[in-house]
Amino acid sequence: MASKFYAIVIGAGTGTGSAAARRFAKSYPVVLMARSPASYQDCVDGINSSGGKAVGVNADAADPASLKAAFDRIRDELLPGHQLAAAVYNVGANFKRAPFLESKVEDFDGSVAGNARGFFLFAQQTIPLLLESVDASPAYPPTLLITGATASMRGAANCAGFSAGMVARRAIGQSLAREFGPKGVHVAHAVIDGVIDIPRTKAYGNINGGVEDGKLDPDAIAESYWHLHTQHRSAFTQELDLRPYVEKF
Amino acid sequence: MASKFYAIVIGAGTGTGSAAARRFAKSYPVVLMARSPASYQDCVDGINSSGGKAVGVNADAADPASLKAAFDRIRDELLPGHQLAAAVYNVGANFKRAPFLESKVEDFDGSVAGNARGFFLFAQQTIPLLLESVDASPAYPPTLLITGATASMRGAANCAGFSAGMVARRAIGQSLAREFGPKGVHVAHAVIDGVIDIPRTKAYGNINGGVEDGKLDPDAIAESYWHLHTQHRSAFTQELDLRPYVEKF
Amino acid sequence: MASKFYAIVIGAGTGTGSAAARRFAKSYPVVLMARSPASYQDCVDGINSSGGKAVGVNADAADPASLKAAFDRIRDELLPGHQLAAAVYNVGANFKRAPFLESKVEDFDGSVAGNARGFFLFAQQTIPLLLESVDASPAYPPTLLITGATASMRGAANCAGFSAGMVARRAIGQSLAREFGPKGVHVAHAVIDGVIDIPRTKAYGNINGGVEDGKLDPDAIAESYWHLHTQHRSAFTQELDLRPYVEKF
Amino acid sequence: MASKFYAIVIGAGTGTGSAAARRFAKSYPVVLMARSPASYQDCVDGINSSGGKAVGVNADAADPASLKAAFDRIRDELLPGHQLAAAVYNVGANFKRAPFLESKVEDFDGSVAGNARGFFLFAQQTIPLLLESVDASPAYPPTLLITGATASMRGAANCAGFSAGMVARRAIGQSLAREFGPKGVHVAHAVIDGVIDIPRTKAYGNINGGVEDGKLDPDAIAESYWHLHTQHRSAFTQELDLRPYVEKF
Repeated sequence: MASKFYAIVIGAGTGTGSAAARRFAKSYPVVLMARSPASYQDCVDGINSSGGKAVGVNADAADPASLKAAFDRIRDELLPGHQLAAAVYNVGANFKRAPFLESKVEDFDGSVAGNARGFFLFAQQTIPLLLESVDASPAYPPTLLITGATASMRGAANCAGFSAGMVARRAIGQSLAREFGPKGVHVAHAVIDGVIDIPRTKAYGNINGGVEDGKLDPDAIAESYWHLHTQHRSAFTQELDLRPYVEKF
Repeated sequence: MASKFYAIVIGAGTGTGSAAARRFAKSYPVVLMARSPASYQDCVDGINSSGGKAVGVNADAADPASLKAAFDRIRDELLPGHQLAAAVYNVGANFKRAPFLESKVEDFDGSVAGNARGFFLFAQQTIPLLLESVDASPAYPPTLLITGATASMRGAANCAGFSAGMVARRAIGQSLAREFGPKGVHVAHAVIDGVIDIPRTKAYGNINGGVEDGKLDPDAIAESYWHLHTQHRSAFTQELDLRPYVEKF
Repeated sequence: MASKFYAIVIGAGTGTGSAAARRFAKSYPVVLMARSPASYQDCVDGINSSGGKAVGVNADAADPASLKAAFDRIRDELLPGHQLAAAVYNVGANFKRAPFLESKVEDFDGSVAGNARGFFLFAQQTIPLLLESVDASPAYPPTLLITGATASMRGAANCAGFSAGMVARRAIGQSLAREFGPKGVHVAHAVIDGVIDIPRTKAYGNINGGVEDGKLDPDAIAESYWHLHTQHRSAFTQELDLRPYVEKF
Repeated sequence: MASKFYAIVIGAGTGTGSAAARRFAKSYPVVLMARSPASYQDCVDGINSSGGKAVGVNADAADPASLKAAFDRIRDELLPGHQLAAAVYNVGANFKRAPFLESKVEDFDGSVAGNARGFFLFAQQTIPLLLESVDASPAYPPTLLITGATASMRGAANCAGFSAGMVARRAIGQSLAREFGPKGVHVAHAVIDGVIDIPRTKAYGNINGGVEDGKLDPDAIAESYWHLHTQHRSAFTQELDLRPYVEKF
C-alpha cells in the first residue's frame, strides 16, 4: 500500500458503492463520498480496521460548490501528493415508478440532478486528475467507472423521470469515453440489470422466485469493476451488463 | 376543415417545426408555439393566407407556468371546443460541440431544460388532451410526435451536454409510448440523422459534398410525421430514422 | 397505370406480402413471387379483377437458378421494357420455438436459407435493376423493402435458429442501405413486432387479450411500406418498427 | 492442476484463440481445436513446455460429424473422466470486404458456415457438457464464451456476407444465454472492435496512426475472457466490448 495513487467512490452508501470501496481498498487508499457520514462511516471503519485505508468526505454530487470543496480537501488535507487511479460514480437518485400523469416534474428534476448532472460535475472534477495520472506510471490506466441500470437503456412504462436521468448519465459516459479514451483515461459503464442484494432489498423475497443468488451480490459487481480498472489500454471495455443468472432479459 | 380537432407544434421556429405545421394544417387548425412571435409569425401568416388556419402562442416549454398558460389560452380563447389530434415536440436547445473540460454545467442544464424537461412538461399538458381525443372518434389515433437527432442515440465526443438532453427526451418518449399506447395514444420518435436544409444551414456547403438533397428537406420530414400520425393503431411505429441518402451512418 | 415501372413482392403468400402487392398495385403492375401458385394466385386474381395488373411467378428465393429464371421471365416475357420501382422481400422461413437441445441444425439451415440467403440472392437480382431505375425518372426513389420481426433484433430463448436467419437478413439490409443509399436506392427494414392478423392466426384468440386491433392488420403494414417507398431521398428511413398499440415491448 | 475440469478453445490458431488457451491453461487442461495441427501445435507445445497441459484435436466446426468425433475423442481418449469448465468459440471465417455486386453467395455461405452454423453445432456439443458441470462443484460457473466483432453489431457497407454470419452468431449466443443462464451456464459474447495484434496484422502499420497499443493485445482479450469465466452467477455479463483506447467508435 505504498502507492501514491488513490480511488474515489461517490454514492458510497449503497451496496455497490461500499463493495467497490472495499475492493479498490485492497490496492489503494479509498475516499468514500456521500451526502452524510451515515452513508459511508461503517464502510470507512470496516476498511480501516481490516488493514486498508479509507476516508469519508461529505459531498453532494449535484452541488458544484460542495463537490469542489470535497476535492480540494482531498488534495490539500486528506491525501496530499496522491494521484487519482480510479473514480466510481455510484450515486442513485430518485428511483421510483409512477404513472406519468401522477408524476411531478420534481421527480424528473431529482433524477436528472443526482443521476446525470452530478455525474457531469463529478467528471469535471475527476477527468483532469485522471489525465494527470496517465503520465504518472500507474499500474493500470486511470479509470472512471459508472454504475448504470436497466433504466439506462430504455424508458420503461411508469419510469420516465428516472430513465431520463439514467440514459443521460450513460450518454455522458459514452461521450467521455470517446473523448478521453484516446488520452489514456478508461471510461466504462456497467448496466446493473436486476435487484442488488442489500439490506433494503432483503424483504423482496419474491425476486426471481427467491432462488439463491437471484439478486446481484455487490461484491460480485465490485469484482467486475476492478477488472474494468485493470484492463490493458489495448482492450478497454466501454460497457458491460451484469445480471443474476436467473434474471429475464 | 370542419374538424373540431387541432394540432400543436412547439418549437415551431425551425424548418422542421414550420414544415410540420404546414403539413398538419392541410387537415387541422394548427397552433404554433415558440418563445416569441419572431419564430412562428411568418409560418402562421403563410398558413392563414393559403387557406389553412393557424394561430401562434408564446410559450417556453421548460417553464411550467408559461406552458400551462398557453394551453389554457388555447382551450378558453383560441380553439374552444376543439380536441387535440396531434402534438409535435420540436424544441431544439443548446446544440453545441465543445471539449468536455471547456464545457460548463450550464450547457448541460440548458440542454436538459429545453430538450427533456420541456418535453416532460409538454407531455403532461398534452397526454390528458390526447387521451380525451381517443374517445372522440378521431380520423387517426391521437399522436404525440418527438423530433430526435443523432445525439438522441449515443453520446458523441464533445457533445455530452447536448446528448444528455436528447437521450433523456427519447427515453421519456419510450416510457410514454409503453404507458399510453395501450390507451390509444400513439407516441413516436423520429431520429433526424443529418443536417436539415434551412436558411441557417445554407452556408454549410460542404455537407455531404454539397450534393443535391444532401441535407434533409423539412417538408420531407413533415411527410413522415404525417404518416406516423395516420398509422392504424394495429401498426404503430415507435421510432424511425430519417437521413439523406448520402449520409454516412 | 401507364407507368413503365413495376413492383415485385416475394413471399407473396402471407398477409403482409399480399397486402403489399395490393397497395403497390394502385400505382404499378405487380409481380408476386412464391414457390407455388397456391400462395399467390388468389391475390393475383384479386388485383386483376379490381382494375390493377398483377402476374404471379414461381420462384424459390434460396435457389439461385430458380430466382434467376424468374427474373429472366419478367424481363423477357412478362413485363418487357419495364423498370423496377420497388421490391419487397417478405419470405418467412422456419419460424419455430424449441428448446435448443431439441433443435436440429436443419432448423438453423432452413431459417438461414429462407430468411437470409434468399434475401442475399434476391438483392443480387434486384439491386442492379433498382440502380438502373435511378436514372429513369421514377416518381419515387427505387426501393428495396425488407420484412423483419422481433427476432431480427435479438435472440430470444428457444429461438436460436430463427433469430440467426432474421438478424442476418437485417444486417444484409443495413449493409445494402449503406452501400446503395448514396447511389439513390432506398433500402429499408420494417420490424414487425407482433402477431399479424391473417387466417392462420385467427385462432390465436388470446393475443393481447383478444382486444380489437391487437394483431397487426396487413393493410396497415402495407401503408407504411408504401410510405417508405415514397420518401424523398433527402429523408430516407432505414428502419422502423410496427406493432399493435397494445403490444408489450 | 489436480482439477478434473478442462477448457476447450476452438479456432485456436488465431491470436485470441491461442491467448485464451494459454490463459485458461493456468487453471485447467486445455483442448485446442482447429482444422489442422498447423493452427494449434505451436500453442499446444508452448503450454506443455511451460508447465501447463494442452492437447490439440482436429475438428471442423461447420461439419457435425467432424465435431462429434472430436468430442468423442476428448471424452474417451484424451481427457476421460474430466468435465467441461469453459468453452470458447473463436472461429473466424471469411472476413472480406467487397462491393455487394461483386460478392458471391459463396461468401455469404462461407461466413454463415464458419461464424454461425459452426457455433450452433459447437454449442450443441458443449451445452450438455456444461450443464453436467453445473452440478459438479466447479470453482466458477460453466461458461460458453463467444468471440464477436464490430460486424456482429451491424452490417457495414461492403460487408454483407461477413456480417450475416457474425450477427447470427451473436443472436444464437443471446438465445443460449437466455435459455441456459437460469440453468447455471454462463454464455457471454465479446465484441472485439479493432484490429488484433497478431503476426498477420503486423504490416497494418497505419492502424490508429501506428500508436503503441493501437491494436488489441490477444493476452489482454484473454484476461477479459478469464474474468467472464470467473464471474459469480449473481452477476453474469452477457456482452462486453473490447477496443483499443485510441479506436474510434
